[in-house]
Parts: sequence; C-alpha cells; structure tokens
Amino acid sequence: MDHDPLPGGRWRTTTAIKELMLARGLKPGDPMPTESELVETTGVSRSKLREAVRTLTALDILEVRHGTGTFVGQMSMRPLVEGMVFRGVLAPGDDATMLTQVVEVRTGLDLGLAPRIVERLAGRDDTELRACVQAMVDAAGRGESFTTEDRTFHLTLAERLGNDLYGEIVAAFWDIHMTVAPRLGLAGARDLTDTALAHERMLDAAIAGDIDAYRAAVVDHYTPILRMLGQPGPAPRDA
Amino acid sequence: MDHDPLPGGRWRTTTAIKELMLARGLKPGDPMPTESELVETTGVSRSKLREAVRTLTALDILEVRHGTGTFVGQMSMRPLVEGMVFRGVLAPGDDATMLTQVVEVRTGLDLGLAPRIVERLAGRDDTELRACVQAMVDAAGRGESFTTEDRTFHLTLAERLGNDLYGEIVAAFWDIHMTVAPRLGLAGARDLTDTALAHERMLDAAIAGDIDAYRAAVVDHYTPILRMLGQPGPAPRDA
Repeated sequence: MDHDPLPGGRWRTTTAIKELMLARGLKPGDPMPTESELVETTGVSRSKLREAVRTLTALDILEVRHGTGTFVGQMSMRPLVEGMVFRGVLAPGDDATMLTQVVEVRTGLDLGLAPRIVERLAGRDDTELRACVQAMVDAAGRGESFTTEDRTFHLTLAERLGNDLYGEIVAAFWDIHMTVAPRLGLAGARDLTDTALAHERMLDAAIAGDIDAYRAAVVDHYTPILRMLGQPGPAPRDA
Repeated sequence: MDHDPLPGGRWRTTTAIKELMLARGLKPGDPMPTESELVETTGVSRSKLREAVRTLTALDILEVRHGTGTFVGQMSMRPLVEGMVFRGVLAPGDDATMLTQVVEVRTGLDLGLAPRIVERLAGRDDTELRACVQAMVDAAGRGESFTTEDRTFHLTLAERLGNDLYGEIVAAFWDIHMTVAPRLGLAGARDLTDTALAHERMLDAAIAGDIDAYRAAVVDHYTPILRMLGQPGPAPRDA
C-alpha cells in the first residue's frame, strides 16, 4: 500500500499513522489525535512522527491547519497537479510537447465522457451550461479571455456524469493545462471566438442527442490551442 | 506554482529548491547539489532544507537514494496512486462506489483513446497485443487470473498512441483499480473468460478498423467487474 521509497523509520511511521487512521475509521476532514497521543500510540519519536506527518501532508493524506491542529486530508489531485506542472516547468524547451500531451489527455477525457453526457443532456437545455457558453461567446466578442467560464463548463459537464473522481481528473488536467499554456503566448481574438463557439457546439450537440457531432465539437474545441502549438491540424477525429 | 498549504519557511524553502532546479536546468535523474551547497545557495537552515526535501520527495519531485545522494525525481503518478488507494482503503464501506468510479474513469480513458487506437492498428495485426490477448485467453481457460497480461495490454495500447502522459494515467488508474478490487472478492471462471474474450474483441475491432465495435468491446470488457459490483449492467454504451 505504501510506495514510499525511503526505507526504515519514516516508512514504518507513515504506515503506522495510516493504520491508526484506518483502525479509528477516520474520514477526510476528521481531526487527528494530538501529537502526544500519536507518539504514545505509534511508539515512534516526536521527530520521526513530524517527518511522517510532513510526508502525508504533501500527499494530501493529512492536512495541517496552523493554530488548529492536524486533520485527515482530502486525498485530492493536488499532488498530481503540483508534480505535473513542475515537470512542465522543468522542461521549458519541451513546453509544446508537454502541452500537446496534456491536450490529448483532455481530449481523451472529454471523448470518454461523451456517451454519458449526450445521454444525460439530450432533449432539454441546461441553463447552467447555456449561461456559461453565452458568457464565453460574449467575452470573446469583447476580445477577452474566459478561463473561469471554460473551467466551469468542463467541471459542470463532469458533474452531470455524477462521478466525482472523473470531475477531479478533468479539473486537474484543466489546471495543468492552464498553468503550462500561458508560457506559449496569449490566444488571439480568432482563437477566443473559435474556442467559445466550439464549446457552444458541444452543448448544442449534446442537447440534440447527436454523439458524433458532440465528438467532432470536442476535437474542434482544442483546434485553436493545437494551432498555437504548431500542430498540423486537430487530433484525428472519429469520422 | 507551489500549492503547499503550509505558510512560512517550508513553502519558501520548497520554492527556493525548485527555483534552483530551474536555474540550473536540471532534468529527472540529474543529481542535486549537496546538502551543504543547497544550504549555502538557498540561505535556509539545514533542518528547514531537510523538511523541504522530504516534502518534494513525497511528491516525486526529488528522489533520495540512500548512500548515493539526492536526485531530481521522475514527477510520476506515484503520489496520485498513493493518495487514491488510501482514499479507497479509508472508505471500506464505499469500496463499491470507489471502484465503480475508477471503472468509469478507466472506461472513459479507453473510449478517449479509441479513435487513435483504431487509426493506428487498423489493417495489420499487432503481434505484441495478440500474444498478450492469447495469454489471457489461455489463463482464463485454466481458471487462472491474468493481471500482468491485462496491465501490459492496456499499457501497450496507450504506447501505440505515442503519448507517455496518457500511458502513465492509464497505468495509474489500472494500479488503483487492482489495489482496491481484491477486497471485493475474486473473479469467477466465467468473469475471467468474459474479460479475456472482451480484450480479444477490442483487438479484433481495432485491427478491423471498426471504431463502434471497438467502443462496444471496451464497455463489455468492464461488464464482469461491474457485475461483481452489483451494477445493473454495463455503463451506457454508444449505440
């Protein structure tokens, strides 16, 4: 269960803390026992315990709130995002490669959602998604970017699936994308308009129950970013 | 860039280390400067430095090899897998929910790969994938499980896309799945055979260039596990 590469005390200590969390049936957000109680229960030194707490905090398995105490963490995608973003930052010459891979992953996640999204949205408009798309189209018309609406759009789609984990992954790769992308330059007015309209076509296709049109719009909506990345064209679409 | 929730010294120290890695153009696997040099360069205390190294090691941004030194890490999916597996472990009553979400994510990742896979494999058999499928069918015939071949099959498919990041995510969710799944009981002989044959249908459909058959086989190949999870049937397929 524990893939911690460091041998010895620290590995045993993180495992001991995890076992204690399990034995007590703790859930994300629950308060952890005090440091003194942990020292007593696990039988490890205070300094080893602090090291282990730090490791588990980095993994979002624990959360230290200063002045309050230590709590069970959310086990979120944050550690993934941090690692991936820094991997992108470390390879500035490969920014385009990294971002192309991220865009392919995002395309895959969106195509993977397609059957469910079309099934859920077919036949009735979705006021939340419609408002989101309209805000993007309006912003593009003013030559302004619309990253907040863009993120909301993708998260709302994932929410419609009713699978929190899928939503977290979509959000994580959106965050990685948006952190890495700006180093490649800003989107032009044409890119903004194309992107906004492609989101609108995704929504229209889903409401029309047309999965092929939905998939085509998913692929199209990454065309502006792939154009900026100097790719010859959109990722091969299903046609 | 740094989402570290802890204020003060530690945040500044991890950032200082990251900035040094950037300034020196270090890449995964490169040796890090010695602790003494890091103390001198960053101007932080040895204890704060060690804390920060520990945090970055948990995130696989650094890697400590005992007796050798500290190196730039691979920034892999390991921290994600560790957090997700422990999230699953912490919620034993919700095992089925967790695993259903993981299966949906894996289905989505596979469906997202579909257009590219069919494009790459159409028209010629793939000896590596064929051998893998044959080994699964043979094992199922003997009533044995075939997790190694199963993992190889999915990783090889992702490799055919030529996107390492996608492959890492596929592998990460395969690992999360296989770590969480055994607590729900073992697959029966029928499940083994159904799963092996569905992998074979995926390969046959890709080689035939039939994306709809490929997608159907992807969904089918999760049916045995969804049956074990007590789901009413396969995830809605595109039909």
